[in-house]
Amino acid sequence: MTIPADLPPRVQIRDVGPRDGLQPEEPVPVADRIRLIDALIAAGLPSIEIAAFVSPRAVPAMAGAAEVVAGVPARPGLVRTALVPNARGAQMAIDAGADEITVTLSASETYNQRNVKMSLAESEASIAEIVGLADDARVPVDAVISCAFGSPYEGEIAPVDVADLAGRLVDAGTTSITYADTTGMATPRRIHEVLDAVAPLGLGRGDAGQPGLHLHDTRGTALVNAYAALQHGVHRFDTSVGGLGGSPFAHGAGGNLATESLVAMLDDLGIQTGIAIGALIEAAAIIESLVGRPVPSGVAHHGPRSQAHRSRS
Amino acid sequence: MTIPADLPPRVQIRDVGPRDGLQPEEPVPVADRIRLIDALIAAGLPSIEIAAFVSPRAVPAMAGAAEVVAGVPARPGLVRTALVPNARGAQMAIDAGADEITVTLSASETYNQRNVKMSLAESEASIAEIVGLADDARVPVDAVISCAFGSPYEGEIAPVDVADLAGRLVDAGTTSITYADTTGMATPRRIHEVLDAVAPLGLGRGDAGQPGLHLHDTRGTALVNAYAALQHGVHRFDTSVGGLGGSPFAHGAGGNLATESLVAMLDDLGIQTGIAIGALIEAAAIIESLVGRPVPSGVAHHGPRSQAHRSRS
Repeated sequence: MTIPADLPPRVQIRDVGPRDGLQPEEPVPVADRIRLIDALIAAGLPSIEIAAFVSPRAVPAMAGAAEVVAGVPARPGLVRTALVPNARGAQMAIDAGADEITVTLSASETYNQRNVKMSLAESEASIAEIVGLADDARVPVDAVISCAFGSPYEGEIAPVDVADLAGRLVDAGTTSITYADTTGMATPRRIHEVLDAVAPLGLGRGDAGQPGLHLHDTRGTALVNAYAALQHGVHRFDTSVGGLGGSPFAHGAGGNLATESLVAMLDDLGIQTGIAIGALIEAAAIIESLVGRPVPSGVAHHGPRSQAHRSRS
Repeated sequence: MTIPADLPPRVQIRDVGPRDGLQPEEPVPVADRIRLIDALIAAGLPSIEIAAFVSPRAVPAMAGAAEVVAGVPARPGLVRTALVPNARGAQMAIDAGADEITVTLSASETYNQRNVKMSLAESEASIAEIVGLADDARVPVDAVISCAFGSPYEGEIAPVDVADLAGRLVDAGTTSITYADTTGMATPRRIHEVLDAVAPLGLGRGDAGQPGLHLHDTRGTALVNAYAALQHGVHRFDTSVGGLGGSPFAHGAGGNLATESLVAMLDDLGIQTGIAIGALIEAAAIIESLVGRPVPSGVAHHGPRSQAHRSRS
């Protein structure tokens, strides 16, 4: 065995930094958020979660969502994603011109209730309503299942229960499913178990039908979990530039897998992303300046290994 | 593919925290270092680098090496390792009663000169002298090759050059070889390439003949590199409780792979270590108190995933 075999030749990364990364932070002005998004576009990110159409009272950091979308014009090869909590938010995102909608619900009933103040059944009904609106507008809906690899409340979440929930979301018409390790409980074994469980779902053809992963680094396992997922054939990942992020409602949640950490590893493995690591690290420096403290990503500070000896000069 | 196949059933971990972890820190009294070592023994660590017989003027944090060894009595199933820089240090370690000696030299000529003020050839001659002393005393010698996956000075280090150096060390009589990623330049691909290159060496039979890995987390890759190495059959790892460590001479060096991060992943994979994660996390709390700042290990702070829901109460 030399280089790991059977890895996907290309990976699609959605940077959630402008949304998931900045959401728990002190509010950043719309113009600065657009500057960050522009830096990510310049680095070659094909997909960026740029806004959340949530109540500005509940989440002040996400205020001005329509202005953000308006400030990032549509362009070929770029998917501008907006998170929405309900049908009202979905209609606002559609009216603003978002290219994709993300919705979240949890594989953990308790986490769902604490995070969005709805039962899981209520969340599913809400998502069905959102899908109806999005279908009319021909906007794809990605459902992000949080706590898919374990819950800080219930502990284990059976992979079959995750697959059953994903199956109901597919039946409800969601375009794709992303499995989120909200509080960093995934391990290589759990990654394989959940991916095995959801493999029969068959969400249609093409990239949209493939499971996506959204990994958090609470226990330092985000990158190894991504590697295990690559070996399982996953080629769709949510990451956050600089490694910021994590729900303020999740006990013990750490930051997201840093975009530059994943890209550096993929570059070294010869897996294509279309992303330029140097420009990406410049975007990490921007988000670091916006939040006013060092981001938790080693690659952001030390550069990729390929530049280790250059950084001495 | 479900659970990753072909992983070793058992892994041997050598905790280098009392040496590599504390060496760059403000000096910690001998009694406290022994308390830390005792906590690691209580957690089930089978092998611990407990001291360095170096000049106390050059490395004040390692002063009192003989007292540390004297304070940790020999016992069955425990290997008490001491790092030595030269024959004089080796004789002191042997006289103190160390069970194993570690020596270091670098696959990077420049790093070797800056770290130990010797050319690589001079280091190899010194190691041959140490091996002579150790052989007479029947003490095994593990040679740790630093910068085995890249150098902050030369950049790439060809795997064939690492293998050639390891071969010369085997010829000189070292008992085992450990490959160190001193400045966090390893990646899953480089791990496989170096392990492939050194596979033909055949260091005799048994665990001593198997390559060991010593991984640093400068770029957040220590755990994924360990996972790649497990898939290559490696079952001998250096780790540092709490994730502390890193040479003060290495530009951009980060901490070692945290013992508890590796043990948590191995536990979840069903790989035996003989180490109790709860007691290990207590040892991480001790080293954290000794250095007076939070250790960089997520598992130390959040516990293993299996206790995530319990930690809420």
